[in-house]
Amino acid sequence: MFGIEICNSGSFMILKTPQESFRFHAIWLRDNALDETTRDPLNGQKLITLQDIPKNIRLDAAVIQGDEILCTFFPENKIIRYPLEWLLDHSYDGKKENRAIKTSLDKVLWDKNLEKSVPTDNISELESKPDSLKKWLFDVHRYGFAKVSGMTGIPGDIFRIVDLFGYVRETNYGRHFEVRNKINPVNLAYTGLALQAHTDNPYRDPVPTLQILSCIENTAQGGESMVIDGFKIAMLLYDEDPQSFSFLANFPARYSYNEPKNVSLHTKKPMIELGPDNELICIRFNSRSSAPLLDVPFNSMEKYYKSYRRFSELVDDHRNQVTFKLKPGEAFIVDNTRVLHSRKGYSGGGKRWIQGCYADKDSLLSKLRTLEK
Amino acid sequence: MFGIEICNSGSFMILKTPQESFRFHAIWLRDNALDETTRDPLNGQKLITLQDIPKNIRLDAAVIQGDEILCTFFPENKIIRYPLEWLLDHSYDGKKENRAIKTSLDKVLWDKNLEKSVPTDNISELESKPDSLKKWLFDVHRYGFAKVSGMTGIPGDIFRIVDLFGYVRETNYGRHFEVRNKINPVNLAYTGLALQAHTDNPYRDPVPTLQILSCIENTAQGGESMVIDGFKIAMLLYDEDPQSFSFLANFPARYSYNEPKNVSLHTKKPMIELGPDNELICIRFNSRSSAPLLDVPFNSMEKYYKSYRRFSELVDDHRNQVTFKLKPGEAFIVDNTRVLHSRKGYSGGGKRWIQGCYADKDSLLSKLRTLEK
Repeated sequence: MFGIEICNSGSFMILKTPQESFRFHAIWLRDNALDETTRDPLNGQKLITLQDIPKNIRLDAAVIQGDEILCTFFPENKIIRYPLEWLLDHSYDGKKENRAIKTSLDKVLWDKNLEKSVPTDNISELESKPDSLKKWLFDVHRYGFAKVSGMTGIPGDIFRIVDLFGYVRETNYGRHFEVRNKINPVNLAYTGLALQAHTDNPYRDPVPTLQILSCIENTAQGGESMVIDGFKIAMLLYDEDPQSFSFLANFPARYSYNEPKNVSLHTKKPMIELGPDNELICIRFNSRSSAPLLDVPFNSMEKYYKSYRRFSELVDDHRNQVTFKLKPGEAFIVDNTRVLHSRKGYSGGGKRWIQGCYADKDSLLSKLRTLEK
Repeated sequence: MFGIEICNSGSFMILKTPQESFRFHAIWLRDNALDETTRDPLNGQKLITLQDIPKNIRLDAAVIQGDEILCTFFPENKIIRYPLEWLLDHSYDGKKENRAIKTSLDKVLWDKNLEKSVPTDNISELESKPDSLKKWLFDVHRYGFAKVSGMTGIPGDIFRIVDLFGYVRETNYGRHFEVRNKINPVNLAYTGLALQAHTDNPYRDPVPTLQILSCIENTAQGGESMVIDGFKIAMLLYDEDPQSFSFLANFPARYSYNEPKNVSLHTKKPMIELGPDNELICIRFNSRSSAPLLDVPFNSMEKYYKSYRRFSELVDDHRNQVTFKLKPGEAFIVDNTRVLHSRKGYSGGGKRWIQGCYADKDSLLSKLRTLEK
């Protein structure tokens, strides 16, 4: 049986279930009223602003009626119905203020062991079977990484992947870009050099939140791809030495990318970005485009570099790396706010031609949620 | 005259100018070496990682030669040349750790007084004269807002504005969207209702950092546009009551937008977002798409709502609002991480038809910097 009690002159109520009690404030309840004058019944958008709610709002009465609670608000004398289930789903009581460094609970952190079971699916499955797509999108969400196989290996395959969930983020590199040896390359990606694992475009704000790399040709010696869970190694650093972690989180770094005449991109952003509740939200790590640090005070600079070096060592530690060699018709996607990627150096008689593009996570997560409903 | 001194067993040097002294660490100098084995001379990207620099790096010698400083590093026995001017431009010494709440110095905060001198230019000027474009882009950068006039008033004008500097951010609303009365609107924007000033799409991550609204028709009664400097009102709130400010900065809010079957966008982001150095970097305020707060502990909820209400009052305070009515062929752009916009309700016999689209600031700032060079 459920019970209700109004407390503190109507400023909040207590909803008592057989197991627990949940408190809800009058202002919170009124702001989140589900009636058609508060929320548009067609599109669910809120029709009122906070000023439409009286400052002295309080609960005059609350009664249980079937599986709903009917709240009467003073001074509006308005009765609003809340499904019990909705209230229990949206309870904010009992949540302790948790300012510990953490990753979101729905992310699964990983290391080299993921190599044995790399999340992957076939493009035709993904295009035709919503359940397969849901599973693959969920993998991208929780691991920040997944592969796709079974494409034609013809230029343009890459857009079939973006079309599964969203939209290309166009940049100065185009709607897509060709990763292969070039003469006078504007970016070291367009050479045969090995690249240290990195997140792309930390010199861009907002950073592209997804990157896709799709293989057209890969007969060169070397050129294997590699991915690393940046959240995992950030948490490794934190567990080893919280102070080291805090240097990379509490001071902005600098990143830049320039092309003569055309492009001049500069950012001031931390290597490890935390949300206001100290949830890890973005890793920016890219040795090629790191610019001189200007925002670390003199007395902290050597300690900052020590932390930065340790992070860089964790990036280069094979125990954190998942390695694979893309074949024509294969691709992979990374959450570019979390997962670092790299390729080994390549040379020899063969060729390596990868197409890349950027997209954003909002539409990917939106697609996942609509499939889950 | 300049002087140099090596200190603390070569861990840093002091560069003495007639006015001041600047310290530079060996590790910082080595990491930012400008020679062709450290940075690619063609594209300027860094060729080494931090692990390529010995852990025990130190300065063995430093001498001034003309307008350069030659540093010899142990144990590499490597000599690197640094232009004096470059060193002075990149000095990090003497910068106090500044964790005060602040906005970037290159932003100009504004209120209703900007109405007398709204930054604006003609599209033909902007398309043909780099100096005019530079001025206009600089205005968008420092005010977070500018108008454009002199377009045809034909659908599609809006892309002329994006083409000045960058790329459209495509979303579930399309490459662009039509803001006018619709039957069964998925979004209240597509009605004649007044909308409280807001930033767009706080339910998206990353949020679109620029929005453009371009007028095709506006003969309806009402329908004026209005913009508000979100950084200005956040700083007003901070000056009034730092604790109120901290509630909105230190707890995540929730935003959501849903369309049956197709769209399910949800975020957990603060209304006032600060960088690691407490620089104001993003405002999210949108009554229509605010979702129930779930991350504010019970004991803080009433104080949070008090702060939220005060911020909402500042949004509605006419002293902060710049109002204008768009004519066909006119448009405006806002920095959607900073400037709130709204429109007054409209009705009557006339029509109102606005086209909107999103873009991102990175390319706008890049274009501005290349024009400034």
